[in-house]
Amino acid sequence: MRIAMGVEYDGSGYHGWQLQQAGVRTVQACVEQAICKVADHALGIHCAGRTDAGVHALEQVIHFDTKAMRPLRAWVLGTNVNLPHDISIAWARQVSSDFHARFGATGRHYRYEILNRPTRSGLHRSRAVWSHRPLDEARMQQAADTLVGTHDFSSYRALACQAKSPVRTLHYLTVRRDGEHVIIETGANAFLHHMVRNMAGVLMAIGRGDEDVSWAKEILDLHDRRKGGVTAPPQGLYLTRVDYPAEFGLPLPNSGAPW
Amino acid sequence: MRIAMGVEYDGSGYHGWQLQQAGVRTVQACVEQAICKVADHALGIHCAGRTDAGVHALEQVIHFDTKAMRPLRAWVLGTNVNLPHDISIAWARQVSSDFHARFGATGRHYRYEILNRPTRSGLHRSRAVWSHRPLDEARMQQAADTLVGTHDFSSYRALACQAKSPVRTLHYLTVRRDGEHVIIETGANAFLHHMVRNMAGVLMAIGRGDEDVSWAKEILDLHDRRKGGVTAPPQGLYLTRVDYPAEFGLPLPNSGAPW
Repeated sequence: MRIAMGVEYDGSGYHGWQLQQAGVRTVQACVEQAICKVADHALGIHCAGRTDAGVHALEQVIHFDTKAMRPLRAWVLGTNVNLPHDISIAWARQVSSDFHARFGATGRHYRYEILNRPTRSGLHRSRAVWSHRPLDEARMQQAADTLVGTHDFSSYRALACQAKSPVRTLHYLTVRRDGEHVIIETGANAFLHHMVRNMAGVLMAIGRGDEDVSWAKEILDLHDRRKGGVTAPPQGLYLTRVDYPAEFGLPLPNSGAPW
Repeated sequence: MRIAMGVEYDGSGYHGWQLQQAGVRTVQACVEQAICKVADHALGIHCAGRTDAGVHALEQVIHFDTKAMRPLRAWVLGTNVNLPHDISIAWARQVSSDFHARFGATGRHYRYEILNRPTRSGLHRSRAVWSHRPLDEARMQQAADTLVGTHDFSSYRALACQAKSPVRTLHYLTVRRDGEHVIIETGANAFLHHMVRNMAGVLMAIGRGDEDVSWAKEILDLHDRRKGGVTAPPQGLYLTRVDYPAEFGLPLPNSGAPW
C-alpha cells in the first residue's frame, strides 16, 4: 500500500532534507524513523523537493510503501507523536501505486521572506532574511516579470545542480510588501538547485538599487552561473505547496482535512 | 540622561522578563547586561509590562539612566551586538527625566495567536497556541464585546496579581480569523496579571462551544477568579505596543526610524 503525506517543518535545526552522512540531523531521517515506528517495519520515503539546510516547508509532500494496515488517522497522529516538535504531519492519504511524490509532481511553489528594516529582529531571525537597506518592491516586481516563462535558467542554478536540463517553466514570480516584510512568491513546473534563492538574491540587489531592473534578464540570457548574483540565505525560504494531478485525490490546499 | 528603547523578543528561551533569582535566564538580565556594556557602567532598566515565561514582545518599551554620552545609533547597534539572537533593540530615544516606561504608559496592546486546525504545527509550536477543535470566531467576538469597557476584572486576574485595584478599562477586544489562525487583539489602559491569557482561555472555551456566549460576562460579574476559566498558554501571547503621551517624542508604530 502506498501512502502520501503532507509534512510541515522549521528547517532551522536541520541539515536539510536529505540523508547525507551518518550522525547528521536531517528532516528525512526524523520523518522516516517516526513513520517506521508506526508501520513497525523499515521503509524509505520519497519527497517532492529536497530542501537545503535552514529551509522550511509549509507543505512538503512525501510517499512511502508499507505492509502495515492502519487508519489514516493513525498514520497522522502516530507519526506526529514520534516526531520532534519542529516537524509535523498535516495529512495522510492512500494513493495508487503509480503516485510518486517527486516524479509525479506537476508544480512546486515557494515563498521567500525578507524582513526589510534598519535593525535586526529577535523574532524573525530564523524565519526571514534581514535586509537593512530599503528595498523597492516595484523595481523588484519589474525585474521578476522578465523571468516568467520557459527559459534556460543556467545562470540561476547552483554549480552543483544535477538536473539534466536547465530549462524550467516559471509560472509566476511576484513581489509584494506587507509592512516591514517583502515577500517573493513563485511557482514553476520544477526548480533547479538554489534557483529560488538565486532569483531572490538578484531581485534583492535590484530592490536595493545596486543593479538595474534589466539585470535579472541580462543574467538569464548569459546562461552562465558565474555571471549570476549572490545566493540569498536559506532561512527566508519556504516550500509552500506541491501540485499533483487531481486523479490522485490529495487534499486541496488549506482544506484542513488531515485524513 | 534618560534613554527609552523599543525591545523585540522571542520569549521561548526565557523565564519571562523579570529577574527573579540568580542563574535563571530572563529577558531583563540579557538586555541590562547588553546595555551596561555599551554604557560602560552598571545600570538598571524599567519596562512597560513584565511578560511571563514564553511570552513574546514585538515592542516592549524600557528606560534607563546613564552617564554615558553616545549617539542614539550607538545605543541601538551596540546593544544589539551584545544581545542574544532572539532579543533585539528596534529604536532608542533620549527622553526627559519625567518619562517612566511603566508608570508613564497610557495604554498597552497585546495579541493572542491561536492555530486552529486538526494537527499540531512544526512551524508555529512556540509562536501560537494550538486548538485542534474548531473555533467559532463569531461567537468569540460576541463574548469579547461584553468585556469591553471599565470593569472590575477580578475574575480575570491571577490569584498572585499584586495590583492594588482590579479595575481596568478595556478599550477593545477583537477576534478575527486568518485561514487556520484565530487572532485576538486587545488594548487597555493597563492589564492585570494573566488578564489577557485568562480572557483568551474563556473566549476559546466559548469558541469551541463548551460554554455559552454569555459566560464571559457572567464570570466578569462574579468578581472571583476561582469561578473563572482556564489560563491560556503563554506561547500565543505577544506584547505588541505601548502608548505614551506624544510629548515624550517616542517613534510612531512601524515608523521604521530606529534613532
